[in-house]
Amino acid sequence: MRLGLDIGGTKTDAVAVAASGTIVARVRLATGWGPDAVVQTVLDAVTAVRAEADAEGIASVGIGIPGQIEPGSGRVEHAVNLGVERLDLVAAVAPLLGVPVRVDNDVKAAALGAAALRAETGSMGYLNLGTGIAAAIVSDGALWRGARGSAGEIGHLSVDPSGPRCRCGQRGCIEAFAGGGAVASRWARPGALPIRDIFDAADAGDAAAVVLRSQIAYGVAAGIRVLVLTADVDAVVLGGGLTGLGKRLRTEVAAQLDASARESAFLRSLHLAERVEMLPAGAPAAALGAALLGAEAIDEREAVPHG
Amino acid sequence: MRLGLDIGGTKTDAVAVAASGTIVARVRLATGWGPDAVVQTVLDAVTAVRAEADAEGIASVGIGIPGQIEPGSGRVEHAVNLGVERLDLVAAVAPLLGVPVRVDNDVKAAALGAAALRAETGSMGYLNLGTGIAAAIVSDGALWRGARGSAGEIGHLSVDPSGPRCRCGQRGCIEAFAGGGAVASRWARPGALPIRDIFDAADAGDAAAVVLRSQIAYGVAAGIRVLVLTADVDAVVLGGGLTGLGKRLRTEVAAQLDASARESAFLRSLHLAERVEMLPAGAPAAALGAALLGAEAIDEREAVPHG
Repeated sequence: MRLGLDIGGTKTDAVAVAASGTIVARVRLATGWGPDAVVQTVLDAVTAVRAEADAEGIASVGIGIPGQIEPGSGRVEHAVNLGVERLDLVAAVAPLLGVPVRVDNDVKAAALGAAALRAETGSMGYLNLGTGIAAAIVSDGALWRGARGSAGEIGHLSVDPSGPRCRCGQRGCIEAFAGGGAVASRWARPGALPIRDIFDAADAGDAAAVVLRSQIAYGVAAGIRVLVLTADVDAVVLGGGLTGLGKRLRTEVAAQLDASARESAFLRSLHLAERVEMLPAGAPAAALGAALLGAEAIDEREAVPHG
Repeated sequence: MRLGLDIGGTKTDAVAVAASGTIVARVRLATGWGPDAVVQTVLDAVTAVRAEADAEGIASVGIGIPGQIEPGSGRVEHAVNLGVERLDLVAAVAPLLGVPVRVDNDVKAAALGAAALRAETGSMGYLNLGTGIAAAIVSDGALWRGARGSAGEIGHLSVDPSGPRCRCGQRGCIEAFAGGGAVASRWARPGALPIRDIFDAADAGDAAAVVLRSQIAYGVAAGIRVLVLTADVDAVVLGGGLTGLGKRLRTEVAAQLDASARESAFLRSLHLAERVEMLPAGAPAAALGAALLGAEAIDEREAVPHG
């Protein structure tokens, strides 16, 4: 049994995956705040999902976490939504769990899991639309891993030198247009679900909301174009909090893609709107992907004696 | 002996590559115009480079050509600079040459050859700065091949919705900023080498030339950022006609990259300017890469009886 955990800012999603690839158990629990509480959350989630799966032994644990992971290490940095500045998560939990543990960025885990859920061969771009914007590319079931950990950081590509200022310092980044955090701060009205409020207000004719909604779609469409024109992925799967808007988001994004296809025969030939898919609400992509990443750690450990 | 041909708009570059990977012979000849003349150019180039290499037998021929290649076929489409609308080049030359022949887009061939010339492991983006702008990604010696042939078409990513109109129909494409054809048409003054004229005039203080030079650098810098933030390539190698400007181009591009690094700590952390390399003038990257692609055709033919 391979376990996979997706540690989110508020909730942790844990799955147990059988050798066949089937998810046999799933639990969700609240995520603790700060390094010690995050470690405890991992241990609690493992205990809970093992009980749920009624599993005797587990082979590996994979963990997806919203932070920077030093390539090839188990060290998490700048997981600001979890109150973690720096934490060697593998060193903290592996001795207690007694199995190989792998930690990776949650967007990379979600991309791998989304590819497994799609069950299509070929390549896929995953575009995560959350507080920030990031992407990952999966080809034939394997993540594209870049040189220094910046693969998929397309949120900080500027697509308009006169666009809104991004928290990174540039103007017109994809994230400045479409990142939930950036958009909410421009909206600056009270409400627990600012992006939904913007879409509702835009539907009601609020001019400021119409602009923000169009900016969101512009940024998402730009991200889709970057993934297809750079890596020519078969499909771009949208995931992350903003996809809770479902068809309302999809319609706006398709309108942006169609507008550029009307301008450009080249873009038209790429059939961008047809390549866009949306991760179903509540799909355990990140936890499943984390389980797959954890399983890689088993293979690598077994490879050592022969190496 | 594996032969590689780079069919350019005016000249064809042909190399013979030994089993060791060393280039043992190189010839250049004028490229013919139109399908029949292009076929004859291939046959002439093969004869000439075989004679130069004093080679008894050849194992394969690879051909890089500036046009769209239907994936997995030997069919060339829209090679407008060669007067070729549609040509099954493999069908036309393979029976006469009697060896496996592979045809691919010249930018993909150049990328593969540039990676071989670098002789570094890891990943590399190749950004071709010619009449148009296109890129390709090589990882551990293999080309990233996308789903439908649009991998590397980053020239048609818009990086400014208010930017110059691109021949593709969009505004602010990277190619509209930095493509030699687009820039020359905005310059609109007589001269055989418009890009060099623009740089000379900019040095002399011509205001229109300063704007165009800055736009070229803006487009090239955007292309570099797209390759690193999407695929996190170790290095971006610049090739194509514009690199004839050498250090003058490099300085302008570095200034653009440095400006965005000053704005953004994230971009600063990527050390973009340090990752940029330039293909040496006259380097036989595309012909070498074509030879490597041709050699893949041998492997595939040999694989069939066992398949």
